[in-house]
Amino acid sequence: MRNIRLDICYDGTRYKGWQRLGSAENTVQGKLEQILSRILDEEIEISGSGRTDAGAHAKGQVANFHTVSKMPCPDILSALRRYLPEDIGIYSCKEVSDRFHARLNARSKTYVYRIWNSEKPCVFDRRFVYTLPEMLDLEKMQQAARLFLGQHDFSAFNANKKMKKSTVRRIDSLEVCRKENEICITVTGDGFLYNMVRIIVGTLIEVGLSQRDAETVSALFGAKREEAGHLVPARGLCLMEVTY
Amino acid sequence: MRNIRLDICYDGTRYKGWQRLGSAENTVQGKLEQILSRILDEEIEISGSGRTDAGAHAKGQVANFHTVSKMPCPDILSALRRYLPEDIGIYSCKEVSDRFHARLNARSKTYVYRIWNSEKPCVFDRRFVYTLPEMLDLEKMQQAARLFLGQHDFSAFNANKKMKKSTVRRIDSLEVCRKENEICITVTGDGFLYNMVRIIVGTLIEVGLSQRDAETVSALFGAKREEAGHLVPARGLCLMEVTY
Repeated sequence: MRNIRLDICYDGTRYKGWQRLGSAENTVQGKLEQILSRILDEEIEISGSGRTDAGAHAKGQVANFHTVSKMPCPDILSALRRYLPEDIGIYSCKEVSDRFHARLNARSKTYVYRIWNSEKPCVFDRRFVYTLPEMLDLEKMQQAARLFLGQHDFSAFNANKKMKKSTVRRIDSLEVCRKENEICITVTGDGFLYNMVRIIVGTLIEVGLSQRDAETVSALFGAKREEAGHLVPARGLCLMEVTY
Repeated sequence: MRNIRLDICYDGTRYKGWQRLGSAENTVQGKLEQILSRILDEEIEISGSGRTDAGAHAKGQVANFHTVSKMPCPDILSALRRYLPEDIGIYSCKEVSDRFHARLNARSKTYVYRIWNSEKPCVFDRRFVYTLPEMLDLEKMQQAARLFLGQHDFSAFNANKKMKKSTVRRIDSLEVCRKENEICITVTGDGFLYNMVRIIVGTLIEVGLSQRDAETVSALFGAKREEAGHLVPARGLCLMEVTY
Protein backbone atom coordinates (compact mmCIF):
# COMPACT_ATOMS: atom_id res chain seq x y z
CA MET A 1 0.00 0.00 0.00
CA ARG A 2 1.25 3.47 -0.86
CA ASN A 3 0.81 6.31 1.62
CA ILE A 4 -0.08 9.65 -0.03
CA ARG A 5 0.06 13.07 1.60
CA LEU A 6 -2.17 15.95 0.45
CA ASP A 7 -1.66 19.62 1.28
CA ILE A 8 -5.06 21.23 1.09
CA CYS A 9 -6.76 24.63 1.26
CA TYR A 10 -10.45 25.41 1.39
CA ASP A 11 -12.99 28.15 1.71
CA GLY A 12 -15.11 26.48 4.37
CA THR A 13 -18.11 28.79 3.97
CA ARG A 14 -20.48 26.17 2.58
CA TYR A 15 -19.14 23.12 4.42
CA LYS A 16 -20.10 21.51 7.70
CA GLY A 17 -16.43 21.42 8.62
CA TRP A 18 -13.64 19.03 7.76
CA GLN A 19 -14.86 15.79 9.28
CA ARG A 20 -17.13 13.47 7.36
CA LEU A 21 -20.43 12.94 9.14
CA GLY A 22 -22.70 10.02 8.24
CA SER A 23 -23.07 10.83 4.55
CA ALA A 24 -20.35 12.31 2.39
CA GLU A 25 -22.29 15.47 1.76
CA ASN A 26 -21.05 18.92 2.70
CA THR A 27 -17.86 18.10 4.53
CA VAL A 28 -14.41 18.66 3.07
CA GLN A 29 -13.22 15.18 4.04
CA GLY A 30 -16.34 13.64 2.52
CA LYS A 31 -15.90 15.57 -0.72
CA LEU A 32 -12.23 14.55 -1.01
CA GLU A 33 -12.93 10.90 -0.25
CA GLN A 34 -15.78 10.79 -2.76
CA ILE A 35 -13.59 12.15 -5.57
CA LEU A 36 -10.47 10.16 -4.64
CA SER A 37 -12.51 6.96 -4.55
CA ARG A 38 -13.80 7.70 -8.03
CA ILE A 39 -10.35 8.61 -9.42
CA LEU A 40 -8.61 5.58 -7.89
CA ASP A 41 -11.54 3.20 -8.29
CA GLU A 42 -11.12 2.06 -4.70
CA GLU A 43 -12.74 3.00 -1.38
CA ILE A 44 -10.49 5.76 -0.01
CA GLU A 45 -10.51 6.97 3.58
CA ILE A 46 -8.40 9.99 4.46
CA SER A 47 -7.05 11.24 7.80
CA GLY A 48 -6.80 14.98 8.26
CA SER A 49 -4.42 16.67 10.73
CA GLY A 50 -7.53 17.53 12.69
CA ARG A 51 -11.10 18.70 12.31
CA THR A 52 -11.91 22.25 11.39
CA ASP A 53 -15.24 23.75 12.42
CA ALA A 54 -18.24 24.23 10.15
CA GLY A 55 -17.60 27.47 8.25
CA ALA A 56 -13.90 27.69 9.16
CA HIS A 57 -11.22 27.78 6.45
CA ALA A 58 -7.81 26.24 5.83
CA LYS A 59 -4.72 27.30 3.94
CA GLY A 60 -2.56 24.55 5.36
CA GLN A 61 -4.64 21.47 6.08
CA VAL A 62 -2.69 18.20 5.72
CA ALA A 63 -4.18 14.76 5.14
CA ASN A 64 -3.00 11.31 4.12
CA PHE A 65 -4.54 8.16 2.69
CA HIS A 66 -3.47 4.68 1.67
CA THR A 67 -4.05 3.21 -1.76
CA VAL A 68 -3.13 0.14 -3.78
CA SER A 69 -3.39 2.20 -6.97
CA LYS A 70 -0.24 2.73 -9.05
CA MET A 71 -1.44 6.04 -10.46
CA PRO A 72 1.48 8.52 -10.32
CA CYS A 73 1.07 11.43 -7.86
CA PRO A 74 1.04 14.15 -10.57
CA ASP A 75 -1.89 12.35 -12.21
CA ILE A 76 -3.78 12.09 -8.92
CA LEU A 77 -3.10 15.80 -8.38
CA SER A 78 -4.40 16.90 -11.76
CA ALA A 79 -7.46 14.63 -11.53
CA LEU A 80 -8.24 16.07 -8.09
CA ARG A 81 -7.86 19.62 -9.40
CA ARG A 82 -10.19 18.79 -12.27
CA TYR A 83 -12.97 17.27 -10.21
CA LEU A 84 -12.88 19.20 -6.93
CA PRO A 85 -15.22 22.18 -6.54
CA GLU A 86 -13.50 25.55 -6.78
CA ASP A 87 -13.66 26.15 -3.01
CA ILE A 88 -11.28 23.23 -2.30
CA GLY A 89 -7.72 23.38 -3.61
CA ILE A 90 -4.79 20.95 -3.52
CA TYR A 91 -1.33 22.46 -3.20
CA SER A 92 0.54 19.19 -3.46
CA CYS A 93 0.16 15.42 -3.59
CA LYS A 94 3.15 13.24 -2.78
CA GLU A 95 4.07 9.75 -1.67
CA VAL A 96 5.39 9.64 1.89
CA SER A 97 6.85 7.06 4.22
CA ASP A 98 4.43 4.47 5.51
CA ARG A 99 4.87 5.83 9.02
CA PHE A 100 3.42 9.25 8.21
CA HIS A 101 0.01 9.95 9.77
CA ALA A 102 -1.43 13.45 9.33
CA ARG A 103 -3.13 13.53 12.73
CA LEU A 104 -0.93 11.39 14.96
CA ASN A 105 2.37 12.92 13.76
CA ALA A 106 1.28 16.56 13.93
CA ARG A 107 3.64 18.45 16.24
CA SER A 108 2.05 21.87 16.15
CA LYS A 109 -0.67 23.83 14.45
CA THR A 110 -1.05 27.48 13.60
CA TYR A 111 -4.41 29.21 13.24
CA VAL A 112 -5.19 32.78 12.25
CA TYR A 113 -8.37 34.57 13.30
CA ARG A 114 -9.21 37.73 11.33
CA ILE A 115 -11.34 40.51 12.80
CA TRP A 116 -12.52 43.37 10.58
CA ASN A 117 -12.45 46.13 13.19
CA SER A 118 -14.05 49.01 11.32
CA GLU A 119 -17.37 50.50 10.27
CA LYS A 120 -16.09 50.60 6.71
CA PRO A 121 -17.29 47.84 4.42
CA CYS A 122 -15.25 44.68 3.92
CA VAL A 123 -16.80 43.44 0.72
CA PHE A 124 -14.10 41.32 -0.88
CA ASP A 125 -12.90 39.34 2.14
CA ARG A 126 -16.28 39.25 3.87
CA ARG A 127 -16.39 35.44 4.00
CA PHE A 128 -13.06 35.29 5.83
CA VAL A 129 -13.42 37.89 8.57
CA TYR A 130 -15.55 38.49 11.63
CA THR A 131 -16.83 42.06 11.47
CA LEU A 132 -16.77 43.95 14.77
CA PRO A 133 -17.03 47.73 14.35
CA GLU A 134 -16.46 48.62 18.05
CA MET A 135 -12.86 49.76 18.41
CA LEU A 136 -10.66 47.17 20.15
CA ASP A 137 -7.81 48.12 22.50
CA LEU A 138 -4.89 46.31 20.92
CA GLU A 139 -2.49 46.84 23.80
CA LYS A 140 -4.82 45.26 26.34
CA MET A 141 -5.36 42.29 24.04
CA GLN A 142 -1.61 41.82 23.62
CA GLN A 143 -1.16 42.00 27.39
CA ALA A 144 -3.78 39.27 27.87
CA ALA A 145 -2.35 37.19 25.01
CA ARG A 146 1.01 36.83 26.80
CA LEU A 147 -0.70 35.11 29.72
CA PHE A 148 -1.83 32.25 27.47
CA LEU A 149 1.73 31.20 26.64
CA GLY A 150 2.97 27.87 27.97
CA GLN A 151 1.19 24.78 29.23
CA HIS A 152 -2.16 25.20 30.93
CA ASP A 153 -5.41 23.40 31.61
CA PHE A 154 -7.72 24.86 28.95
CA SER A 155 -10.89 23.33 30.42
CA ALA A 156 -12.62 26.74 30.24
CA PHE A 157 -11.77 26.97 26.53
CA ASN A 158 -13.26 23.63 25.58
CA ALA A 159 -16.78 23.39 24.16
CA ASN A 160 -16.89 19.60 24.23
CA LYS A 161 -18.80 18.83 27.40
CA LYS A 162 -18.35 15.07 27.05
CA MET A 163 -14.56 15.37 26.89
CA LYS A 164 -13.03 12.81 29.26
CA LYS A 165 -9.36 13.18 28.30
CA SER A 166 -6.87 15.79 29.48
CA THR A 167 -7.63 19.41 28.63
CA VAL A 168 -4.00 20.43 29.12
CA ARG A 169 -2.47 22.03 26.02
CA ARG A 170 0.64 24.08 25.25
CA ILE A 171 0.53 27.45 23.48
CA ASP A 172 3.82 28.43 21.87
CA SER A 173 2.86 31.81 20.53
CA LEU A 174 -0.20 34.06 20.47
CA GLU A 175 0.14 37.31 18.58
CA VAL A 176 -2.35 40.11 18.14
CA CYS A 177 -1.57 42.67 15.48
CA ARG A 178 -3.40 45.33 13.51
CA LYS A 179 -2.99 45.96 9.78
CA GLU A 180 -5.10 49.00 8.90
CA ASN A 181 -8.72 48.00 9.61
CA GLU A 182 -7.98 44.39 10.39
CA ILE A 183 -6.88 42.68 13.59
CA CYS A 184 -5.13 39.34 13.12
CA ILE A 185 -4.77 36.89 15.97
CA THR A 186 -2.21 34.18 15.22
CA VAL A 187 -1.86 31.24 17.58
CA THR A 188 0.49 28.26 17.52
CA GLY A 189 0.22 25.31 19.88
CA ASP A 190 0.66 21.59 20.20
CA GLY A 191 -3.04 20.98 19.71
CA PHE A 192 -6.38 22.61 20.29
CA LEU A 193 -9.55 21.50 22.04
CA TYR A 194 -12.97 21.79 20.43
CA ASN A 195 -13.64 25.52 19.74
CA MET A 196 -10.55 26.45 21.78
CA VAL A 197 -9.18 29.06 19.34
CA ARG A 198 -12.57 30.70 18.95
CA ILE A 199 -13.07 30.91 22.73
CA ILE A 200 -9.56 32.34 23.22
CA VAL A 201 -10.39 34.99 20.58
CA GLY A 202 -13.75 35.71 22.26
CA THR A 203 -11.92 36.19 25.56
CA LEU A 204 -9.33 38.50 23.97
CA ILE A 205 -12.12 40.53 22.36
CA GLU A 206 -13.81 41.00 25.76
CA VAL A 207 -10.46 42.28 27.05
CA GLY A 208 -10.15 44.56 23.99
CA LEU A 209 -13.62 45.99 24.69
CA SER A 210 -12.68 46.52 28.39
CA GLN A 211 -15.40 44.08 29.50
CA ARG A 212 -12.76 41.93 31.18
CA ASP A 213 -9.37 42.80 32.72
CA ALA A 214 -6.32 41.42 30.95
CA GLU A 215 -4.82 40.05 34.20
CA THR A 216 -7.89 37.92 34.92
CA VAL A 217 -6.95 35.53 32.11
CA SER A 218 -4.62 33.59 34.40
CA ALA A 219 -7.56 32.71 36.63
CA LEU A 220 -9.26 30.92 33.72
CA PHE A 221 -6.88 27.97 33.57
CA GLY A 222 -8.60 24.94 35.07
CA ALA A 223 -11.85 26.90 35.33
CA LYS A 224 -15.30 26.12 33.96
CA ARG A 225 -16.38 26.88 30.38
CA GLU A 226 -18.74 29.70 31.40
CA GLU A 227 -15.91 31.68 33.01
CA ALA A 228 -14.04 32.18 29.73
CA GLY A 229 -15.20 34.42 26.89
CA HIS A 230 -17.85 33.87 24.23
CA LEU A 231 -17.47 31.81 21.09
CA VAL A 232 -16.71 33.97 18.03
CA PRO A 233 -18.03 33.01 14.57
CA ALA A 234 -16.15 30.37 12.56
CA ARG A 235 -15.88 32.50 9.41
CA GLY A 236 -12.86 34.42 10.78
CA LEU A 237 -10.89 31.24 11.51
CA CYS A 238 -8.30 29.67 9.21
CA LEU A 239 -5.93 26.75 9.81
CA MET A 240 -2.64 28.08 8.44
CA GLU A 241 -0.01 25.42 9.07
CA VAL A 242 0.61 22.01 10.55
CA THR A 243 4.19 21.04 11.37
CA TYR A 244 5.51 17.49 11.63
CA MET B 1 -32.09 69.92 -4.02
CA ARG B 2 -28.97 68.50 -2.39
CA ASN B 3 -26.43 66.66 -4.51
CA ILE B 4 -24.92 63.60 -2.75
CA ARG B 5 -21.80 61.71 -3.82
CA LEU B 6 -21.31 58.03 -2.94
CA ASP B 7 -18.01 56.14 -3.14
CA ILE B 8 -18.90 52.50 -3.66
CA CYS B 9 -17.33 49.06 -3.87
CA TYR B 10 -18.93 45.80 -4.89
CA ASP B 11 -18.31 42.15 -5.54
CA GLY B 12 -20.13 41.98 -8.88
CA THR B 13 -20.32 38.18 -9.02
CA ARG B 14 -24.08 37.93 -8.67
CA TYR B 15 -25.06 41.14 -10.46
CA LYS B 16 -25.96 41.88 -14.06
CA GLY B 17 -23.55 44.80 -13.95
CA TRP B 18 -23.90 48.35 -12.66
CA GLN B 19 -26.64 49.71 -14.85
CA ARG B 20 -30.27 49.28 -13.95
CA LEU B 21 -32.16 47.37 -16.60
CA GLY B 22 -35.97 47.44 -16.77
CA SER B 23 -36.60 46.20 -13.24
CA ALA B 24 -34.45 47.02 -10.24
CA GLU B 25 -33.42 43.40 -9.74
CA ASN B 26 -29.83 42.22 -9.89
CA THR B 27 -28.00 45.38 -10.86
CA VAL B 28 -25.91 47.42 -8.46
CA GLN B 29 -27.53 50.68 -9.49
CA GLY B 30 -30.99 49.14 -9.11
CA LYS B 31 -30.17 47.82 -5.65
CA LEU B 32 -28.80 51.19 -4.50
CA GLU B 33 -31.76 53.14 -5.88
CA GLN B 34 -34.24 50.76 -4.29
CA ILE B 35 -32.66 51.16 -0.84
CA LEU B 36 -32.02 54.91 -1.12
CA SER B 37 -35.63 55.46 -2.19
CA ARG B 38 -36.81 53.56 0.87
CA ILE B 39 -34.44 55.39 3.25
CA LEU B 40 -35.23 58.86 1.90
CA ASP B 41 -38.90 58.15 1.18
CA GLU B 42 -38.51 59.66 -2.28
CA GLU B 43 -37.88 58.25 -5.76
CA ILE B 44 -34.08 58.33 -6.12
CA GLU B 45 -32.21 57.99 -9.39
CA ILE B 46 -28.43 57.73 -9.26
CA SER B 47 -25.76 58.35 -11.91
CA GLY B 48 -22.67 56.16 -11.81
CA SER B 49 -19.31 57.17 -13.29
CA GLY B 50 -19.99 54.51 -15.89
CA ARG B 51 -21.37 51.03 -16.36
CA THR B 52 -19.45 48.02 -15.24
CA ASP B 53 -20.05 44.67 -16.93
CA ALA B 54 -22.12 41.82 -15.52
CA GLY B 55 -19.81 39.96 -13.12
CA ALA B 56 -17.18 42.71 -12.94
CA HIS B 57 -16.24 44.32 -9.62
CA ALA B 58 -15.51 47.79 -8.30
CA LYS B 59 -13.38 49.18 -5.50
CA GLY B 60 -13.73 52.78 -6.65
CA GLN B 61 -17.11 53.31 -8.28
CA VAL B 62 -18.49 56.84 -7.83
CA ALA B 63 -22.12 57.87 -8.13
CA ASN B 64 -24.28 60.87 -7.30
CA PHE B 65 -27.94 61.58 -6.74
CA HIS B 66 -30.19 64.50 -5.92
CA THR B 67 -32.59 64.59 -3.01
CA VAL B 68 -34.91 67.03 -1.22
CA SER B 69 -34.38 65.08 2.00
CA LYS B 70 -32.68 66.85 4.91
CA MET B 71 -31.30 63.61 6.36
CA PRO B 72 -27.63 64.22 7.36
CA CYS B 73 -25.04 62.35 5.27
CA PRO B 74 -23.73 60.20 8.20
CA ASP B 75 -27.31 58.98 8.74
CA ILE B 76 -27.74 58.13 5.05
CA LEU B 77 -24.40 56.31 5.19
CA SER B 78 -25.28 54.19 8.19
CA ALA B 79 -28.74 53.38 6.84
CA LEU B 80 -27.21 52.31 3.53
CA ARG B 81 -24.68 50.12 5.35
CA ARG B 82 -27.48 48.56 7.36
CA TYR B 83 -29.74 47.72 4.41
CA LEU B 84 -27.33 46.94 1.57
CA PRO B 85 -26.40 43.29 0.94
CA GLU B 86 -22.88 42.35 2.06
CA ASP B 87 -21.52 42.35 -1.50
CA ILE B 88 -22.07 46.10 -1.89
CA GLY B 89 -20.19 48.53 0.35
CA ILE B 90 -20.23 52.30 0.75
CA TYR B 91 -16.91 53.98 1.60
CA SER B 92 -18.32 57.47 1.93
CA CYS B 93 -21.42 59.61 1.46
CA LYS B 94 -21.03 63.37 1.23
CA GLU B 95 -22.78 66.46 -0.03
CA VAL B 96 -21.09 67.97 -3.08
CA SER B 97 -21.51 71.03 -5.24
CA ASP B 98 -24.58 71.07 -7.45
CA ARG B 99 -22.33 70.97 -10.52
CA PHE B 100 -20.83 67.55 -9.70
CA HIS B 101 -21.94 64.73 -12.03
CA ALA B 102 -20.31 61.31 -11.55
CA ARG B 103 -20.32 60.42 -15.23
CA LEU B 104 -19.99 63.74 -17.05
CA ASN B 105 -17.19 65.08 -14.82
CA ALA B 106 -15.06 61.92 -14.80
CA ARG B 107 -11.59 62.79 -16.11
CA SER B 108 -10.01 59.35 -16.03
CA LYS B 109 -10.65 55.81 -14.88
CA THR B 110 -8.38 53.05 -13.71
CA TYR B 111 -9.20 49.38 -14.04
CA VAL B 112 -7.27 46.33 -12.85
CA TYR B 113 -7.56 42.93 -14.50
CA ARG B 114 -6.24 39.99 -12.45
CA ILE B 115 -5.02 36.78 -14.07
CA TRP B 116 -4.20 33.75 -11.91
CA ASN B 117 -1.36 32.35 -14.01
CA SER B 118 -0.69 29.04 -12.30
CA GLU B 119 -1.87 25.48 -12.02
CA LYS B 120 -1.97 25.91 -8.26
CA PRO B 121 -5.40 26.50 -6.79
CA CYS B 122 -6.67 30.02 -6.14
CA VAL B 123 -9.40 29.26 -3.67
CA PHE B 124 -9.82 32.45 -1.68
CA ASP B 125 -9.77 35.03 -4.48
CA ARG B 126 -11.38 32.76 -7.06
CA ARG B 127 -14.27 35.16 -7.71
CA PHE B 128 -11.89 38.00 -8.57
CA VAL B 129 -9.39 36.40 -10.94
CA TYR B 130 -9.39 34.79 -14.35
CA THR B 131 -7.52 31.48 -14.10
CA LEU B 132 -5.17 30.71 -16.98
CA PRO B 133 -2.61 28.01 -16.16
CA GLU B 134 -0.57 28.34 -19.41
CA MET B 135 2.54 30.35 -18.61
CA LEU B 136 2.40 33.90 -20.01
CA ASP B 137 5.47 35.71 -21.35
CA LEU B 138 5.45 38.89 -19.30
CA GLU B 139 8.08 40.71 -21.30
CA LYS B 140 6.18 40.32 -24.57
CA MET B 141 3.00 41.53 -22.90
CA GLN B 142 4.80 44.60 -21.54
CA GLN B 143 6.23 45.31 -24.98
CA ALA B 144 2.75 45.16 -26.52
CA ALA B 145 1.26 47.22 -23.67
CA ARG B 146 3.50 50.19 -24.50
CA LEU B 147 1.98 50.41 -27.98
CA PHE B 148 -1.46 51.12 -26.51
CA LEU B 149 -0.35 54.37 -24.88
CA GLY B 150 -1.69 57.62 -26.25
CA GLN B 151 -4.76 58.47 -28.32
CA HIS B 152 -6.00 55.89 -30.81
CA ASP B 153 -9.13 54.70 -32.57
CA PHE B 154 -10.15 51.69 -30.49
CA SER B 155 -12.80 50.47 -32.96
CA ALA B 156 -11.34 46.95 -32.81
CA PHE B 157 -11.66 46.97 -29.00
CA ASN B 158 -15.33 47.90 -28.93
CA ALA B 159 -18.00 45.23 -28.58
CA ASN B 160 -20.91 47.62 -29.16
CA LYS B 161 -21.77 47.10 -32.81
CA LYS B 162 -24.42 49.82 -32.81
CA MET B 163 -21.95 52.47 -31.58
CA LYS B 164 -22.30 55.57 -33.78
CA LYS B 165 -20.08 57.94 -31.79
CA SER B 166 -16.30 58.27 -31.91
CA THR B 167 -14.28 55.26 -30.86
CA VAL B 168 -11.18 57.38 -30.20
CA ARG B 169 -9.90 57.10 -26.61
CA ARG B 170 -6.72 58.01 -24.77
CA ILE B 171 -4.75 55.51 -22.67
CA ASP B 172 -2.47 57.15 -20.11
CA SER B 173 -0.88 54.04 -18.67
CA LEU B 174 -1.05 50.29 -19.15
CA GLU B 175 1.07 48.20 -16.84
CA VAL B 176 1.55 44.46 -16.75
CA CYS B 177 3.22 43.05 -13.67
CA ARG B 178 3.58 39.72 -11.96
CA LYS B 179 3.28 39.12 -8.21
CA GLU B 180 4.03 35.46 -7.55
CA ASN B 181 1.30 33.49 -9.34
CA GLU B 182 -0.73 36.47 -10.35
CA ILE B 183 -0.48 38.83 -13.31
CA CYS B 184 -2.07 42.24 -12.81
CA ILE B 185 -2.91 44.47 -15.75
CA THR B 186 -3.61 48.04 -14.69
CA VAL B 187 -4.96 50.51 -17.22
CA THR B 188 -5.80 54.20 -16.91
CA GLY B 189 -7.51 56.19 -19.62
CA ASP B 190 -9.95 59.01 -20.28
CA GLY B 191 -12.78 56.55 -20.90
CA PHE B 192 -13.41 53.05 -22.14
CA LEU B 193 -15.67 51.63 -24.83
CA TYR B 194 -17.96 48.65 -24.18
CA ASN B 195 -15.75 45.65 -23.23
CA MET B 196 -12.63 47.63 -24.22
CA VAL B 197 -10.52 46.67 -21.19
CA ARG B 198 -11.43 42.99 -21.52
CA ILE B 199 -10.53 42.96 -25.24
CA ILE B 200 -7.22 44.74 -24.56
CA VAL B 201 -6.46 42.07 -21.95
CA GLY B 202 -7.47 39.28 -24.37
CA THR B 203 -5.10 40.76 -26.95
CA LEU B 204 -2.26 41.00 -24.42
CA ILE B 205 -2.86 37.37 -23.38
CA GLU B 206 -2.59 36.24 -27.01
CA VAL B 207 0.75 38.08 -27.17
CA GLY B 208 1.81 36.46 -23.89
CA LEU B 209 0.98 33.03 -25.30
CA SER B 210 2.95 33.85 -28.50
CA GLN B 211 -0.21 33.54 -30.60
CA ARG B 212 0.24 37.13 -31.76
CA ASP B 213 3.34 39.31 -32.20
CA ALA B 214 3.67 42.26 -29.85
CA GLU B 215 4.43 44.69 -32.73
CA THR B 216 1.19 43.86 -34.53
CA VAL B 217 -0.81 45.74 -31.90
CA SER B 218 -0.24 49.05 -33.70
CA ALA B 219 -2.06 47.71 -36.75
CA LEU B 220 -5.22 47.21 -34.66
CA PHE B 221 -6.06 50.89 -34.26
CA GLY B 222 -8.94 51.77 -36.56
CA ALA B 223 -9.35 48.07 -37.43
CA LYS B 224 -12.39 45.83 -37.16
CA ARG B 225 -13.47 44.05 -33.96
CA GLU B 226 -12.48 40.58 -35.22
CA GLU B 227 -8.85 41.63 -35.72
CA ALA B 228 -8.26 42.30 -32.01
CA GLY B 229 -8.05 39.63 -29.32
CA HIS B 230 -10.77 37.65 -27.58
CA LEU B 231 -12.97 38.88 -24.75
CA VAL B 232 -11.73 37.65 -21.36
CA PRO B 233 -14.20 36.84 -18.54
CA ALA B 234 -15.60 39.72 -16.46
CA ARG B 235 -14.69 38.14 -13.10
CA GLY B 236 -11.06 39.33 -13.35
CA LEU B 237 -12.06 42.97 -13.90
CA CYS B 238 -12.30 45.64 -11.21
CA LEU B 239 -12.91 49.39 -11.51
CA MET B 240 -10.30 50.82 -9.13
CA GLU B 241 -10.53 54.60 -9.35
CA VAL B 242 -12.31 57.46 -11.05
CA THR B 243 -10.67 60.88 -10.99
CA TYR B 244 -12.48 64.20 -11.33
